[in-house]
Amino acid sequence: MSFLPTFAEVQNAHGIVKKYAHRTPVLTSSSIDRIVGGNLFFKCENFQKVGAFKFRGACNAVFSLTDKEAEKGVATHSSGNHAAALALAAKMRGIAAHIVMPSNSPEIKKIAVAGHGAKITFCEPTLQARENTLAQIVVETGATEIHPYNNFNVIAGQGTAVKELIEDFGDFDLIIAPVGGGGLLSGTILSTKYLLPNCKVIAAEPAGADDAFQSFHAKKVIPSVNPKTIADGLLTSLGERNFAIIMKNVDDIVTVSEDKIVEAMRMIWERMKIIIEPSSAVPLAAILEGKIDVQNKKVGIILSGGNLDFGKLPF
Amino acid sequence: MSFLPTFAEVQNAHGIVKKYAHRTPVLTSSSIDRIVGGNLFFKCENFQKVGAFKFRGACNAVFSLTDKEAEKGVATHSSGNHAAALALAAKMRGIAAHIVMPSNSPEIKKIAVAGHGAKITFCEPTLQARENTLAQIVVETGATEIHPYNNFNVIAGQGTAVKELIEDFGDFDLIIAPVGGGGLLSGTILSTKYLLPNCKVIAAEPAGADDAFQSFHAKKVIPSVNPKTIADGLLTSLGERNFAIIMKNVDDIVTVSEDKIVEAMRMIWERMKIIIEPSSAVPLAAILEGKIDVQNKKVGIILSGGNLDFGKLPF
Repeated sequence: MSFLPTFAEVQNAHGIVKKYAHRTPVLTSSSIDRIVGGNLFFKCENFQKVGAFKFRGACNAVFSLTDKEAEKGVATHSSGNHAAALALAAKMRGIAAHIVMPSNSPEIKKIAVAGHGAKITFCEPTLQARENTLAQIVVETGATEIHPYNNFNVIAGQGTAVKELIEDFGDFDLIIAPVGGGGLLSGTILSTKYLLPNCKVIAAEPAGADDAFQSFHAKKVIPSVNPKTIADGLLTSLGERNFAIIMKNVDDIVTVSEDKIVEAMRMIWERMKIIIEPSSAVPLAAILEGKIDVQNKKVGIILSGGNLDFGKLPF
Repeated sequence: MSFLPTFAEVQNAHGIVKKYAHRTPVLTSSSIDRIVGGNLFFKCENFQKVGAFKFRGACNAVFSLTDKEAEKGVATHSSGNHAAALALAAKMRGIAAHIVMPSNSPEIKKIAVAGHGAKITFCEPTLQARENTLAQIVVETGATEIHPYNNFNVIAGQGTAVKELIEDFGDFDLIIAPVGGGGLLSGTILSTKYLLPNCKVIAAEPAGADDAFQSFHAKKVIPSVNPKTIADGLLTSLGERNFAIIMKNVDDIVTVSEDKIVEAMRMIWERMKIIIEPSSAVPLAAILEGKIDVQNKKVGIILSGGNLDFGKLPF
């Protein structure tokens, strides 16, 4: 394995990302603070371009390419926020984005990706079909594959969210991020442990997709098997690069029930009047379920995104 | 009729309101700007305390009482945001709030009002029953009635929202507010026409509850008859005091269809990732329907509130 990235890579990434991405606002809620007994600062990546933190990593990856690499475009397989993020970043650089999407992707995601001018190739909805189709496109076009999370430029880009949070609001006792593939979590660790060495970083994961929790305790990557959760951004298995960074510095990984995810999501919708997707609710769910103690603590929480189908609300 | 209030009253109100209310953020959306061809600045009163601009007026009314008046409490009849706003403002001053609510008020509203410690009296769901019940309470308790909109302190309080918008973002070509009873619109007129004499103020109203539109053209108050609209904050008829201010200085009142209200609401939810109630969507609906030209204009829009039942979304 190559050397792990450090905060220096996040700083470089921020030089790029701040030119193209929103410096998203940070919101607080006195009524949620009263309920949980701590001071929560929500970094609102649901307000980020394409509605998710994913744009930061995609943006850093695309603009870190040499001109020679860039002219052949970028490629990935994704049915979610990374696809739209990579498509938009590529459009901003004026290069091609080849996106492999499973044929059963939600219509709204297909429209979003197509809307940014990406070249979409549909395939069977299996990991094998996605990887094969992507490999073929990479061979044919010479495009650079940008993995959604198992990629150091992507990780460094995701780390800029919590870097901004700390720059804007100073010291924290604790930062909580959701974990799926681990891109956001590993970037968060790089920034937090450098800027605030005494601040803890805890990851929250749905119990129905607890491969990061399992991997953390087994000290090796254990892939997801039939994960099932409403938090559809967190279904993926931990990447090897992400795992290496996480094992070195995460303070804990906790799991939460589906009921608490829905309760936390509704609490944020009702009390903060902002739209978050279920994955964003997982850190608050962990607090509400008593898995993370925030009593009298200053806590940073990353709200990862706000893309969901309004026709399928869980409440 | 007593003399109409002026911007001086809004300034006084702001001295009070800024101590208790949020200075709400102003958001923009490059994607909505592209769709409408203008630069829209959304003043987010959905983020205000109790989730609506109503807290500003209630707060000014409650804290403008003398100690002698205040000790007997305040009273109103309302099934909506004004009830919660008055209850919270009274709690902040440490006085009683007597709220008459129709027995068929949504459970969520009853809980919100009770949660702020108000004394609720339920009555039959008719205007007559509400007024009679309120009159009896005022006689029994000596409480001061605070009308939701036909009250100069309330009007001056509501005017602080657009005062902040103009202070924070400078010159505007046009300000658009929704109109129901006219409290927000009349306050908006007082602030805008003083601070930016060349800025137009246009009100947007659901076609299904177009009493302000009718009154404006008839030059006399024409009450609503069986209004019907999804924008449930705008069902009320224009107040006499509000009408006087509106007639003097509003530039136009336009009506919008229900379909466009839903389309505008969904557009704000999807693209801005914030929760607004249908009434808040009426100004953008008027733009989408071609009733207000914003081409190349700098436009302020007041998002009046964010309280609604998630179980009854129109999309």
